[in-house]
Amino acid sequence: MSDQSSTNASWGGRFSEPTDAFVARYTASVDFDRRMYRQDIQGSVAHAKMLCKVGVLTEQERDDIIRGLEEVRIEIERGDFEWSVALEDVHMNIEAALTKKIGITGKKLHTGRSRNDQVATDIRLYLRDEIDAISAELTRLQQGLAELAEKEADTIMPGFTHLQTAQPVTFGHHLLAWNAMLERDYARLQDCRARMNQLPLGAAALAGTTYPIDRFYTAELLGFDAPTENSLDSVSDRDFAIEFCSAAALIMMHMSRFSEELVLWASAQFRFIDLPDRFCTGSSIMPQKKNPDVPELVRGKTGRVYGHLVGLLTLMKSQPLAYNKDNQEDKEPLFDTVDTLRDSLRAFADMAPNLIARKDDMREAAMRGFSTATDLADYVVRKGIPFRDAHEIVGKAVGYGVKTGKDLSEMTLKELQQFSTEITADVFDVLTLEGSVAARNHIGGTAPDQVRAAAARAKAALAQR
Amino acid sequence: MSDQSSTNASWGGRFSEPTDAFVARYTASVDFDRRMYRQDIQGSVAHAKMLCKVGVLTEQERDDIIRGLEEVRIEIERGDFEWSVALEDVHMNIEAALTKKIGITGKKLHTGRSRNDQVATDIRLYLRDEIDAISAELTRLQQGLAELAEKEADTIMPGFTHLQTAQPVTFGHHLLAWNAMLERDYARLQDCRARMNQLPLGAAALAGTTYPIDRFYTAELLGFDAPTENSLDSVSDRDFAIEFCSAAALIMMHMSRFSEELVLWASAQFRFIDLPDRFCTGSSIMPQKKNPDVPELVRGKTGRVYGHLVGLLTLMKSQPLAYNKDNQEDKEPLFDTVDTLRDSLRAFADMAPNLIARKDDMREAAMRGFSTATDLADYVVRKGIPFRDAHEIVGKAVGYGVKTGKDLSEMTLKELQQFSTEITADVFDVLTLEGSVAARNHIGGTAPDQVRAAAARAKAALAQR
Amino acid sequence: MSDQSSTNASWGGRFSEPTDAFVARYTASVDFDRRMYRQDIQGSVAHAKMLCKVGVLTEQERDDIIRGLEEVRIEIERGDFEWSVALEDVHMNIEAALTKKIGITGKKLHTGRSRNDQVATDIRLYLRDEIDAISAELTRLQQGLAELAEKEADTIMPGFTHLQTAQPVTFGHHLLAWNAMLERDYARLQDCRARMNQLPLGAAALAGTTYPIDRFYTAELLGFDAPTENSLDSVSDRDFAIEFCSAAALIMMHMSRFSEELVLWASAQFRFIDLPDRFCTGSSIMPQKKNPDVPELVRGKTGRVYGHLVGLLTLMKSQPLAYNKDNQEDKEPLFDTVDTLRDSLRAFADMAPNLIARKDDMREAAMRGFSTATDLADYVVRKGIPFRDAHEIVGKAVGYGVKTGKDLSEMTLKELQQFSTEITADVFDVLTLEGSVAARNHIGGTAPDQVRAAAARAKAALAQR
Amino acid sequence: MSDQSSTNASWGGRFSEPTDAFVARYTASVDFDRRMYRQDIQGSVAHAKMLCKVGVLTEQERDDIIRGLEEVRIEIERGDFEWSVALEDVHMNIEAALTKKIGITGKKLHTGRSRNDQVATDIRLYLRDEIDAISAELTRLQQGLAELAEKEADTIMPGFTHLQTAQPVTFGHHLLAWNAMLERDYARLQDCRARMNQLPLGAAALAGTTYPIDRFYTAELLGFDAPTENSLDSVSDRDFAIEFCSAAALIMMHMSRFSEELVLWASAQFRFIDLPDRFCTGSSIMPQKKNPDVPELVRGKTGRVYGHLVGLLTLMKSQPLAYNKDNQEDKEPLFDTVDTLRDSLRAFADMAPNLIARKDDMREAAMRGFSTATDLADYVVRKGIPFRDAHEIVGKAVGYGVKTGKDLSEMTLKELQQFSTEITADVFDVLTLEGSVAARNHIGGTAPDQVRAAAARAKAALAQR
Repeated sequence: MSDQSSTNASWGGRFSEPTDAFVARYTASVDFDRRMYRQDIQGSVAHAKMLCKVGVLTEQERDDIIRGLEEVRIEIERGDFEWSVALEDVHMNIEAALTKKIGITGKKLHTGRSRNDQVATDIRLYLRDEIDAISAELTRLQQGLAELAEKEADTIMPGFTHLQTAQPVTFGHHLLAWNAMLERDYARLQDCRARMNQLPLGAAALAGTTYPIDRFYTAELLGFDAPTENSLDSVSDRDFAIEFCSAAALIMMHMSRFSEELVLWASAQFRFIDLPDRFCTGSSIMPQKKNPDVPELVRGKTGRVYGHLVGLLTLMKSQPLAYNKDNQEDKEPLFDTVDTLRDSLRAFADMAPNLIARKDDMREAAMRGFSTATDLADYVVRKGIPFRDAHEIVGKAVGYGVKTGKDLSEMTLKELQQFSTEITADVFDVLTLEGSVAARNHIGGTAPDQVRAAAARAKAALAQR
Repeated sequence: MSDQSSTNASWGGRFSEPTDAFVARYTASVDFDRRMYRQDIQGSVAHAKMLCKVGVLTEQERDDIIRGLEEVRIEIERGDFEWSVALEDVHMNIEAALTKKIGITGKKLHTGRSRNDQVATDIRLYLRDEIDAISAELTRLQQGLAELAEKEADTIMPGFTHLQTAQPVTFGHHLLAWNAMLERDYARLQDCRARMNQLPLGAAALAGTTYPIDRFYTAELLGFDAPTENSLDSVSDRDFAIEFCSAAALIMMHMSRFSEELVLWASAQFRFIDLPDRFCTGSSIMPQKKNPDVPELVRGKTGRVYGHLVGLLTLMKSQPLAYNKDNQEDKEPLFDTVDTLRDSLRAFADMAPNLIARKDDMREAAMRGFSTATDLADYVVRKGIPFRDAHEIVGKAVGYGVKTGKDLSEMTLKELQQFSTEITADVFDVLTLEGSVAARNHIGGTAPDQVRAAAARAKAALAQR
Repeated sequence: MSDQSSTNASWGGRFSEPTDAFVARYTASVDFDRRMYRQDIQGSVAHAKMLCKVGVLTEQERDDIIRGLEEVRIEIERGDFEWSVALEDVHMNIEAALTKKIGITGKKLHTGRSRNDQVATDIRLYLRDEIDAISAELTRLQQGLAELAEKEADTIMPGFTHLQTAQPVTFGHHLLAWNAMLERDYARLQDCRARMNQLPLGAAALAGTTYPIDRFYTAELLGFDAPTENSLDSVSDRDFAIEFCSAAALIMMHMSRFSEELVLWASAQFRFIDLPDRFCTGSSIMPQKKNPDVPELVRGKTGRVYGHLVGLLTLMKSQPLAYNKDNQEDKEPLFDTVDTLRDSLRAFADMAPNLIARKDDMREAAMRGFSTATDLADYVVRKGIPFRDAHEIVGKAVGYGVKTGKDLSEMTLKELQQFSTEITADVFDVLTLEGSVAARNHIGGTAPDQVRAAAARAKAALAQR
Repeated sequence: MSDQSSTNASWGGRFSEPTDAFVARYTASVDFDRRMYRQDIQGSVAHAKMLCKVGVLTEQERDDIIRGLEEVRIEIERGDFEWSVALEDVHMNIEAALTKKIGITGKKLHTGRSRNDQVATDIRLYLRDEIDAISAELTRLQQGLAELAEKEADTIMPGFTHLQTAQPVTFGHHLLAWNAMLERDYARLQDCRARMNQLPLGAAALAGTTYPIDRFYTAELLGFDAPTENSLDSVSDRDFAIEFCSAAALIMMHMSRFSEELVLWASAQFRFIDLPDRFCTGSSIMPQKKNPDVPELVRGKTGRVYGHLVGLLTLMKSQPLAYNKDNQEDKEPLFDTVDTLRDSLRAFADMAPNLIARKDDMREAAMRGFSTATDLADYVVRKGIPFRDAHEIVGKAVGYGVKTGKDLSEMTLKELQQFSTEITADVFDVLTLEGSVAARNHIGGTAPDQVRAAAARAKAALAQR
């Protein structure tokens, strides 16, 4: 890549000295924005077609431009294109190459537009593509979870609050909790996509252009719902990047919770799951280690996505209208958020269906920790005691259990009756794990029947996307 | 407020020593969550009605509970209610007061629910109310801008990029740029509202409940679209708070840009606007000062809203399911975001229609800085020169102007023709400010006709909300 | 509190209409900055003494001011002071009260200063006091850890990496890891304190003052090391608040890790510790629950401190010099960070010495998970095998153990010799937990002797503070 | 670069299937951590010397290792080294190459250490180098400012608060305000450097090692002040990265304020400075534009540094001890912060001495806006009026001036006497700009003599570094 400093051909007319070489490198964006070459060419092709339609370009000029751009695209994809820092960005690199190919006509392409609206268009096209790719990975992960949930609808594990054993739940129910989070995430991505799907091209530098452009036509060519409403806003707006990163931060937050649980469950203390070896790595010093690297790394990568969101919010804070050079800093955090999110979802979509539940360990854990205490309280309520008093009664039974080392189901009827004479022999039915989960039989509850129904609803909905 | 430590009546059964007094204060939430007393009562009334419908409460019990809760509400609003830190939170305070009023029936209200799903319901009810109030202020601000834009559709000011004079725009056009930002903000709030409008009640502690509850009925009573799909998710989900704070952060970012411009424009260097004295304050030492406090403070408050968003994202990172005590920390940042946002919008909705444009200063500024250079380039293009070459020609003319201290419109035809012989006498038509703005006559452009049309569209859309 | 709007007495001269009532409330700071009344008075007393020393006030005037301020202080502390929003802030409230008490002399106190340098002085005095109080809590927590570490120097538990059993460590060693984090935290607080301990008073509004002030004298009276070097910087600098919040964010990060481990260890899966009941709370629905609320809440409060740091960084971004109204927003995040940090440290300083190690459970956990695999590898290395090959040998032995359900120490010599013929009967000495920890006998290592020495060093250093 | 998946040679013994190819790429760090190859080799050389000193390696082995590592270093710097993703990270890549070169001895290098303490050592060495490089750029920038301040000690410009004209100051004084910020920044970097300058090597995986290592010797070889105190802390501590990023965030915050002012001052509205063409760029559409790209970009890059700080704080939140894979995510934000900070400081260090003050425009601006109103108030105070009353008097005079369009110095004595009969002819001496600035003649004040003295102090201190 050439980086020698020179007066830039696209704006040098009024300048009396060339740009400082370090400054040229410091201010150039081509090292990262060339990732959008495909969208830049796509936008330029549509712009050329529109300029021809309104009479600014001849058909010949339009066709030359389209052909030239196509050649540039092929060169780039072949790795033959020579990117130049002196040409600052992806836009000028491509335009310069075009002009070299087709001569003076290449210089006409920039009529009626500016890099300000051009880059705004490119990023939207880029992000729209990426949202679609990310949504597909998200859907794949959700499908994996819904299928596994169906299979594990009857598998009992302890549910936790405060990481203390709370009540028995089914593993399938837990898997669907993750799915519920991801379902909201999917909807947020779609909302973001719909809101950003407007064409900024035509805003030109900031005020619109004096050429008789047809923005509705360009919008149609590029699959945008409509042109944007205000040119000043169009060139300075980066809401879409921030809204996307907000949605991404929420997804990564969910993935960090998912990961945290996988890490806990894979520990020697929990032993609820096994992760296949191919998703783990070892230690250079401790020969016995099998580390859950993938969930750990996903958990760690949450930080970088949060960071990018903060970076973008900071970037835009207090900027006066319209475009400022600061805005160039929108791309790297956005690109890295896209990559991080897509890769993390892909890794989980690959791994999730291969989680192996250690059912015996799960069940044994659910037996411990007085997990059916609430069931006992509900039982006592059904005998006519107000809930708050029932809670007190069971609390005392648990206190007795802690001292004597007995779970509720291990106490004799006599022992239980110390705490309430309302307790009779039928109490032992409600103290089983199966009884406990089956009883929570309403929409959203953990009963196996509800889990199967919820998994079926989820699968049907995912199939519709 | 009483804060003496004691074994808490709602869960003390299994404990062998009372809570440490400092810990009781440190862990209590009543000091801030009592703000939701109205929603807590609203949710309890609906819960009681549902419990009665499904046969868990008698009609008498239901009515006693509703009457008792109503009395509590009145006491709270009168300021007669004695809040107790020992009772931890708004829920236990109200329930304890209810039981004191109506006796043993009060203890039955908590049947089939937990504080985990109760607080999740309360916050959603609270936030739904606040989103509606905030949306109203936002609409009021947008209406003010649209009306002012209509009035100022012909007022010419310099448009800036890089804070350098770029091209003339109309003040009305600039006002509508702000409106365009707020339009997206409104849509984001509505999306957030729709997504959160599901009932978590019935999730109980984490797994659902053994009582034959009817969640669809409760949802209907409380105006929710549906019950939530998964109980584990329902008690641990705080997405709505984060999504709301993300939307709020974007609004404050827009307001910070709006503010930055007002502060600039009110300076002695710009003098584009006057702010009424009643929105400004003075200095205790410098008698001449009239400071634009309101926009400065709005700009500053952007930081606290960004901070709350980060706080909430951090809070939820890596939490295993389901509810953890950490979640209690969701409320203060949410409440402060709500207050900050509503007050800031209110202050601007009051102030915006009273902005006074200093039209002469605006116009004079637009005259300076070669703001019609692009028009000259477009003129040369129309004479058949490719845009990139036209740009070079005008660049040189500007360089000449910088040296000689002449704006483009102040040069003679001869002087202009030094740079291109294509320039003829008709050039002076395009070098006027009016000509420049009027020529950008397409959707989104700054031409007064477009601004008037855009303002009319905005007003019509706002009237439909 | 009075909040009727009026032209403010301290700057109203040049204004033609009173401040809008809502704006007055929106822009006032007295609701939160009155917390600094003691420092405001302390600063004013020193200022009055200095003004007298340089001849601007008579001795009588000085004494009247000091007496009047003292009366105000007593009124405030008694709760008799009537704060007024119309007077905007703590400074004007106190000055107005002073003038009411001592007449025209009160109006002379503000000579040679501005609210800009006054508030900058007040916050530094305030924060200096708070850093001292926080440092004392931090020291108390460290002392508790060092003492417990000494007691638990021989207690063996599994050390984890990736939450997988790694190698045996001592509980005392683990306690000292927390202490090492807090040691850096203490140093950061002291660095922050030293850097901020300079007097901004005398900067006046922004440029200094025309009175013959003696800033060195005021600095000495208030315990500052020196006056600040530049008046523009002095009134706009909020580095100290940000640096403090950065240090606080690191402390809370450490506390969140500490908390995470306590929550894990108190779970039914780990059972490494017991927390006294008085530091826990229960559940309103599940009678058996004993939740580790204090560590959960500390972990959760990490978010709010991170958020405040982000808020302050955002606040100051891109502000032109010198003072802007935005700066008023520095106080609430700072105050809340101070409160959160001090309370969280206090709760942990109370709780930490009362952690109860469940030694048998810890030991049993350390036995599992091939925790001495590295010791076996080191043993093989001592027989002359390169480390990387030894690692491979032990890796295979572990693979065999996973299949057969045997830990390394449970295999026969013959079984072990399958993997390397270098292994002989003395291998079983290195496979004991005691042998493993004792062998790591260098500074920083987990050997009980090292832990005792490290605890002694820590205690000695803490005693010197 | 090879990326085919395979069982990793450094830990594969206990694994039954190779790592998934995508997972291998997702979890590998070599793409970014190879930047630390020099420090990795430096640490390994010291480790080998220490192992030899304590008898674990022979002198021959030590020398072979050192020679082999030196060859690797040369290969890397020549660009001949083939990095492999399958080898995960910089450490394994270098070790594998070493072993290929020198055979079995290469496998002995990892004796008594782990990648956990190795990477902790590498990053500290890396960051220490970078802090020194950054400090040098910072010093260069400060020197430029101090020298320019000396030259501009008498240049008068308006000082602003709330971006409203406040009082006249000197440009030299303003330059030194920036220097004062950077002075604190320098101190923070040095504090960070001192605190991190401790050797983690010897912590091994987490618990120390069974080899008779001499950590004091290694520390000495690598220029660390001491070995770290606790092995668990040593491998999991990332405080240094966070503390560095906090310091960097403050520097960028200061640079954003500096930038904001340059952007304002370079606008057509302010015209206080000229930036040399070589630090600016133009527009592809508007031929007249000369944009202050460098300060805009520095202002924008503030966001990314804030973001990295948030990313790292998030990363470490709630991680249990000791090392977790999450920690691998510390590097990219740290590296990017280093690069951003160093480049931004370099750009400003180059540009700052070349700022051209437009003295006439500055002076003219200072004349406007009643900038000497405070001087008039102080004058009236000297006539015996209390300050608060004097403020009121001048406020009214300003109100009169706003109405009549006259600055204070343009009013006649009679006009001034309308507001106070104490005003006499000598008042006009205090209403001059020179009189105003010269009168603020105390340490920290804007008087030219003070500015010259302050610049001299700054230069002397910088020369001592």
